[in-house]
Amino acid sequence: MLEITELPVYRDRHLTLLTDLYQLTMMYGQFCVNRHEERVVFDVFYRTNPCGNGYAVAAGLEQVAWYLYHLKFTEGDLAYLRSLKMFSEDFLEYLKGFSFHGDVYAIPEGTLVFPNEPLLRVEGPILEVQLIESAILTFVNHQSLIATKARRIVEAARTNPKHPRSPVIEMGLRRAQNVDASVFGARAAYIGGCVGTSNLMAGESYQIPVSGTQGHSWIQSFPSELDAFIAYSQAFPEETVLLVDTYDVLRSGIPNAIRVGLQMKEKGLSLKGIRIDSGDLAYLSKRARRMLDAAGLKDVKIIASSDLDEYIIRDLILQGAEIDGWGVGTHLITSSECPALGCVYKLVAQEVHTVWEPRIKVSENPSKVTNPGRKKVLRLFVDDHAVADLIALTHEEFDASKPLELFDPIHTYKRKVIENYRIEELLVPVFVRGELVYELPKVQQIRARVDEQVEQFVPEIRRPRKPHEYHVDLSQELWDLKQTLLHEWRTP
Amino acid sequence: MLEITELPVYRDRHLTLLTDLYQLTMMYGQFCVNRHEERVVFDVFYRTNPCGNGYAVAAGLEQVAWYLYHLKFTEGDLAYLRSLKMFSEDFLEYLKGFSFHGDVYAIPEGTLVFPNEPLLRVEGPILEVQLIESAILTFVNHQSLIATKARRIVEAARTNPKHPRSPVIEMGLRRAQNVDASVFGARAAYIGGCVGTSNLMAGESYQIPVSGTQGHSWIQSFPSELDAFIAYSQAFPEETVLLVDTYDVLRSGIPNAIRVGLQMKEKGLSLKGIRIDSGDLAYLSKRARRMLDAAGLKDVKIIASSDLDEYIIRDLILQGAEIDGWGVGTHLITSSECPALGCVYKLVAQEVHTVWEPRIKVSENPSKVTNPGRKKVLRLFVDDHAVADLIALTHEEFDASKPLELFDPIHTYKRKVIENYRIEELLVPVFVRGELVYELPKVQQIRARVDEQVEQFVPEIRRPRKPHEYHVDLSQELWDLKQTLLHEWRTP
Repeated sequence: MLEITELPVYRDRHLTLLTDLYQLTMMYGQFCVNRHEERVVFDVFYRTNPCGNGYAVAAGLEQVAWYLYHLKFTEGDLAYLRSLKMFSEDFLEYLKGFSFHGDVYAIPEGTLVFPNEPLLRVEGPILEVQLIESAILTFVNHQSLIATKARRIVEAARTNPKHPRSPVIEMGLRRAQNVDASVFGARAAYIGGCVGTSNLMAGESYQIPVSGTQGHSWIQSFPSELDAFIAYSQAFPEETVLLVDTYDVLRSGIPNAIRVGLQMKEKGLSLKGIRIDSGDLAYLSKRARRMLDAAGLKDVKIIASSDLDEYIIRDLILQGAEIDGWGVGTHLITSSECPALGCVYKLVAQEVHTVWEPRIKVSENPSKVTNPGRKKVLRLFVDDHAVADLIALTHEEFDASKPLELFDPIHTYKRKVIENYRIEELLVPVFVRGELVYELPKVQQIRARVDEQVEQFVPEIRRPRKPHEYHVDLSQELWDLKQTLLHEWRTP
Repeated sequence: MLEITELPVYRDRHLTLLTDLYQLTMMYGQFCVNRHEERVVFDVFYRTNPCGNGYAVAAGLEQVAWYLYHLKFTEGDLAYLRSLKMFSEDFLEYLKGFSFHGDVYAIPEGTLVFPNEPLLRVEGPILEVQLIESAILTFVNHQSLIATKARRIVEAARTNPKHPRSPVIEMGLRRAQNVDASVFGARAAYIGGCVGTSNLMAGESYQIPVSGTQGHSWIQSFPSELDAFIAYSQAFPEETVLLVDTYDVLRSGIPNAIRVGLQMKEKGLSLKGIRIDSGDLAYLSKRARRMLDAAGLKDVKIIASSDLDEYIIRDLILQGAEIDGWGVGTHLITSSECPALGCVYKLVAQEVHTVWEPRIKVSENPSKVTNPGRKKVLRLFVDDHAVADLIALTHEEFDASKPLELFDPIHTYKRKVIENYRIEELLVPVFVRGELVYELPKVQQIRARVDEQVEQFVPEIRRPRKPHEYHVDLSQELWDLKQTLLHEWRTP
């Protein structure tokens, strides 16, 4: 059994009660009819990409693993449940011995994923698998959302022909929806491609590079802006970035920064950058660049912040802004345009007399009908390009040496035959019978995976609005099974 | 010195590094020039009400108090800071002895607050007061945001003439931006007027009533919907609420619920309610009400959920929906329409030779110019109705027996004289020289305070769009000071 490294962010956390009461009432209900050890399968999936994006970046699995690994009911938890006066002592006694004995298959963090694909498949006794629904969804929804949003912003910053790798720094702590949103959000932002964070707790937990210089209060607390700049450059001679917008960017901030930059140059040091945090960033950055260049300070970088998002960054670049790096806060750390990803957790199979029987959830809304059965997700590559994902039943085998016909599961007349393809199976075992069997990658590896993944797809999926829609198809056998179950439901 | 009760949500948390790197670089910079013990005053305030609301509900102070009370640098924290290779050993040694010695004045949680008012005034040595900026803003921004959003939703539910107190339950855990967002969000939602939460960790931490019944997986896991309903009613005979939309609300869910309701009635029990979680809630609830009534089940309540917010709730009520209770998730727990409140933390005064000198931050954007000096916030009541808030300097005295002329700080020709008024001072001492002097109220008291507060204002401030704008004025002396400082800045 693999072990979990205790990161500072998890220090002594105990999250067993991080669940909805209805999980406990359902667990108790199953216990009352003695069905709580019946094995079931649940899928975690979402139905729409966040922010109208062409994909999502899977993230949050580390948190799921930490949670399942430590899951148990303490005396305190049981005392609270007892106080609700809803559960029998037998049941509470049963919970004393609770731990997770199930199997979890998951798509690794940093993988590009698409609507309706199981990101996780969770199998085990219904009592255990029910408890964990809420927390798993919380972790996966939050981190996948922020990783995706971060990627959108990083892609925007990369549209700059003059600075194709201009870095994005996450600095949203003060606008994050509380502590964990800031720390796990900074982690997800780094996975999505940010180069660092302002958040020290995230930096400590995940060895994410941290950055930060000074705020307006630093400038205000000195008799003059120039005094403040000089004091900062003396404290951090190697890392001097000066905030130039406390009073007046063009008449005061940049002239003073140039004075300090020239003084540093004389001493063999160099001013690293300036930061503009208000005003018109396109106009000010172009003026700033000219002023710095004219003073012989061509190497001084211009960093911009101030309510940025992927749209504003694109527009600033289109207008020729001279910005070398971006600090992004609110819109990144909250994914303000779409602050929730809608992963759900749906029962897809149930063991009856040692046989897995598929289950379906019908709905008035056809998009909410689930894909039944124990499933796997296959990514199909032709010439090293991902051409489609195929959701199939776990027992299905595909012979990649033979042509494969794919079809749209809704508009089934849309068909395509692929040949000479390669299959990558996306779901990997993480827990087997309650034992952790997956070595959790470091966040740096996950971040690198996103960069690799993005290159596997046509670039049109990266358009921020109305991107190309990547195909996620069902195997013929899964499609047939779904139709059969729907038909059975309609004709009782 | 008062003590802090350790709630489960805070168990063993250590949050000293929950700060932005730039706080540490500024602290180090002040340490280098030996100014780190100079005393300064910072204000916490926001510039725009969230979601276009007419006010915000102050929340998050408990978390601020917990944080400041426990603030110290551990060896682990210092090891991490050392690893950044940015700070001298002298400085790290100094941090070993760090604790908070400052003063905090705050507007109590549950108070209605308005733009530009200091919600907190923090005074102390600059090194200490700088460190805590990020965490204080995170706590206050998040909880005030969610409390305000919750209030909007609760006000919407109260527009129902048939059910003027129809309850709202917070059930957004799975869509929350990670753990703390769910727990402190549930707390804030309860403060805003929700009657309970689905989140057990929040329930345990704050004795918030918890509620929950069953999800679709419960129904799916039984051979039939009726079997599932019966099993649930046997496990929870006193608290049976049945989810009726797994297959078909009108043809299956409600008829089965009626069967169970009638069976329970025969046994002297009663079906408490049904829950509809998809489909058209106005249409389905009206049909459901008629079907239940016709079966003699007039007391069975109808609970609705499914992507609700304040606008949809209002519209459903306007269309005569027969809904007795509301379960609200995503839009509440993320405040999806406006997922961040923009409180800032600005230097307003600095001690120079034992005298507080006011500080101002000028800006290209006039709305971002700060109000200088050590200030208090006075709420003025005439006939027990709040008529305006007045921001004044701390030393100013007002004689309520004499008329007071108020004026709009921007459009100064707009003036009003009030007489026979009563003054309530909103900022109360929370920490004095680092000692906690404020008895933190229970969340139930804070929740009651919101209800009382709301009644003190004209109801027009509660309109969800384009509400009446409540006046927040500056005292003549403060206004004059601001103009003087702006004038000094312009004419050096």
